[in-house]
Amino acid sequence: MAATPRRMHLVGYLIAGPTWHHHGSWRQDASDAVDALDPARYEHLAKVMEAAKFDGLFFVDTLMLTEFYQGSHAEVVRNGGQIYMLEPMQLLAAMARVTSRIGLSATMSTAFAHPFQIARAFATLDHISKGRAAWNIVTSTTTREAQNFGLASLPSPTERYDHADEVVEACCRLWECWEADAIVYDRERGIYADPAKVHRADYEGRWVRTRGPLPTPRSPQGRPVFMQAGSSDRGRDFAARWAEVVFTLQHSKQDMQRFCADMKSRVAAAGRRPEQCAVLPAIDVILGETQEIARERADYIASLVNPEFGIAEISNALGVDLPPDAFDRPVDELSLKEGARGMLDVILQASKPGTPLTIREAARRYGNTRMNPQIVGTPKMVADYMQDLFESGCCDGFVLCPAVSPEGYVQFCRSVVPELQRRGIFRKDYAGRTFRENLAN
Amino acid sequence: MAATPRRMHLVGYLIAGPTWHHHGSWRQDASDAVDALDPARYEHLAKVMEAAKFDGLFFVDTLMLTEFYQGSHAEVVRNGGQIYMLEPMQLLAAMARVTSRIGLSATMSTAFAHPFQIARAFATLDHISKGRAAWNIVTSTTTREAQNFGLASLPSPTERYDHADEVVEACCRLWECWEADAIVYDRERGIYADPAKVHRADYEGRWVRTRGPLPTPRSPQGRPVFMQAGSSDRGRDFAARWAEVVFTLQHSKQDMQRFCADMKSRVAAAGRRPEQCAVLPAIDVILGETQEIARERADYIASLVNPEFGIAEISNALGVDLPPDAFDRPVDELSLKEGARGMLDVILQASKPGTPLTIREAARRYGNTRMNPQIVGTPKMVADYMQDLFESGCCDGFVLCPAVSPEGYVQFCRSVVPELQRRGIFRKDYAGRTFRENLAN
Repeated sequence: MAATPRRMHLVGYLIAGPTWHHHGSWRQDASDAVDALDPARYEHLAKVMEAAKFDGLFFVDTLMLTEFYQGSHAEVVRNGGQIYMLEPMQLLAAMARVTSRIGLSATMSTAFAHPFQIARAFATLDHISKGRAAWNIVTSTTTREAQNFGLASLPSPTERYDHADEVVEACCRLWECWEADAIVYDRERGIYADPAKVHRADYEGRWVRTRGPLPTPRSPQGRPVFMQAGSSDRGRDFAARWAEVVFTLQHSKQDMQRFCADMKSRVAAAGRRPEQCAVLPAIDVILGETQEIARERADYIASLVNPEFGIAEISNALGVDLPPDAFDRPVDELSLKEGARGMLDVILQASKPGTPLTIREAARRYGNTRMNPQIVGTPKMVADYMQDLFESGCCDGFVLCPAVSPEGYVQFCRSVVPELQRRGIFRKDYAGRTFRENLAN
Repeated sequence: MAATPRRMHLVGYLIAGPTWHHHGSWRQDASDAVDALDPARYEHLAKVMEAAKFDGLFFVDTLMLTEFYQGSHAEVVRNGGQIYMLEPMQLLAAMARVTSRIGLSATMSTAFAHPFQIARAFATLDHISKGRAAWNIVTSTTTREAQNFGLASLPSPTERYDHADEVVEACCRLWECWEADAIVYDRERGIYADPAKVHRADYEGRWVRTRGPLPTPRSPQGRPVFMQAGSSDRGRDFAARWAEVVFTLQHSKQDMQRFCADMKSRVAAAGRRPEQCAVLPAIDVILGETQEIARERADYIASLVNPEFGIAEISNALGVDLPPDAFDRPVDELSLKEGARGMLDVILQASKPGTPLTIREAARRYGNTRMNPQIVGTPKMVADYMQDLFESGCCDGFVLCPAVSPEGYVQFCRSVVPELQRRGIFRKDYAGRTFRENLAN
């Protein structure tokens, strides 16, 4: 319990819609899901997390309304599931203006935005936030998203990552177009900027081309912090090359250890120091003044989930339409058709070896927490749990994805964070001005 | 001078960079161009214009650093010309949070953003601003922009507008996916939204396809206000079909009358009422307590422009690289290679019939105001001028593009606006909550 120089990183999970990971939480009276379309909701959460010195927050995003289950978007709409209502960059711009230190991360797909757009968007956010922008790089995984963009389908996962490598390379070239001291602002001689310090990008890849220069001068961080959540072999290698923060869904301590060790060795193999890539599994936290209160709360929240909707959401996550006669089949018969490999992994992790859950049982748990660890207890118990994982090679910190918003954040920030600070494993104040500086401390 | 029930519309012109239309204004001590990368600059301007009850403000935008002159971006960078540094939607999101009534418009190109992106971006801004979003629809005109997006060139102007028609049609379908009362939020029964009120878009055009539904619930305005600035025959027909606000560059009163009459007849031919499309020419205003002070100010500001840079900017505007031996040639030998037809028109309008300016002389004026009328005088003189145009079939109001920011806006709002209000030709307060409601009043 002695103070240690190593400090954990905390990042808050957000979706611009009614549900993060818990599919009934919007039904609670105190839920701010009722304000899902109001930017004030997100500004408030950013202020709460910044007051607790969180490293950052990030918006998960997908460019569709999920609808694999029964071939329709009916279930996700009726049950208020993960609906990505608002475009995250605009929300982050607003949140940047009411905060000054917390990192601000948005998901943007390499499949549907051109590097010129991506580079300009994140350079703008980095200017607006004065150095706090982060890009959660995704390649998009579903035909539905492709169809929204007028395409019949997406390339194979491997090709998507090869393409994404080019997109990120092109973005980096665009971010380097303006040297940091290009703007001279010499009123007397009428020289605004030194043209010798503004260069074209001239990137030519197999799929991706851009000429430049980007019209945006160099931003405070030069380029945004890169986040990534790859789970497949190719996805992990992509993360090892680029990611400064890896977000992951893992069920148990052992799953976390395995994933973390694998990621760190890949990062080293890619020629980077392991500490340059922070591995952050998602956790849900339900707090109570006593363990009993917390337990009762967890049971109550779980009772708000429509069990059938868990099946719809597993369908949506894996890109399969599960028929009723599959509900009592073992979960290890599931396979990924479309969607993210990490989602299938965390569903399979929930079974004890040799005794697979039924799909019905997995769906019940999936509806509740999307299979992420749900830590139920007093602030000290939660801090114990987090410290144990943090000191057991499981992770470098956590993505907090509370069942209930805003209370889940507020309670965590008021009770667990001070406990982590007392133990010396979380910062008491920000050491740097930019997101990248704070991640290094 | 009697009060009239017809009221003019005022919209402020912005670029997220050092220069609007006046190419030396950043050199003044008081210019806020020094804060071009700071969102506070734009928030301040929005508050100033809202306090004066402007209908709206809009960001002009282009997806490149201009560089036709001498095949290089050197001149625009060195002279601090029109450099579109920051992505407008994020700035507007921040500005929306410090204002409550003023309309917020961004330029977005139909050439490089897919309707799914465009629709989601503007629906988001309309939610964030609670009904004040507007889209300035442009088709993009230059090979440079195409090259930034990895394309060799753009389609022909006519094809670009045919394509743009499909983009806007597809966006409209996406904005209609959620019926206005789709969200039920029934905590008791666990019904978040009524799936029968959420529909797919299923748009299939010649070039554009999208499936939907958009994940964004219906926004307060349903769809953003449409702005447009077409000048070619095809561009004007496009505006006649879609635009609620037409932004135009016209040199003289007669040019304005001709343009306005033409637009109104096209709007009628498209089956709309002429008053559903407000025609707003750009004006620059330089104010003084006396006419002499204003005149001295105008001369001083003009002295800040590098005359050679006017030639570079004409080159950039027309997509031609003007060689030195052309500088003393008559301006009516110019032709448009790439760029906007409206820019060529306004350059040609500056010559008296039969006695064309030289390119050198046109460049001097172009560098100063981009050929837009520069109204120099006392607040009463400026109000006289505006009232005369407004009551002579020239326009429905103006896009204010002052030489100097922020003073140009601040002085106009403090002195000319009250004069226009006294004359009963400009609102004293907002009548509606949304941008569209205010445009109708």
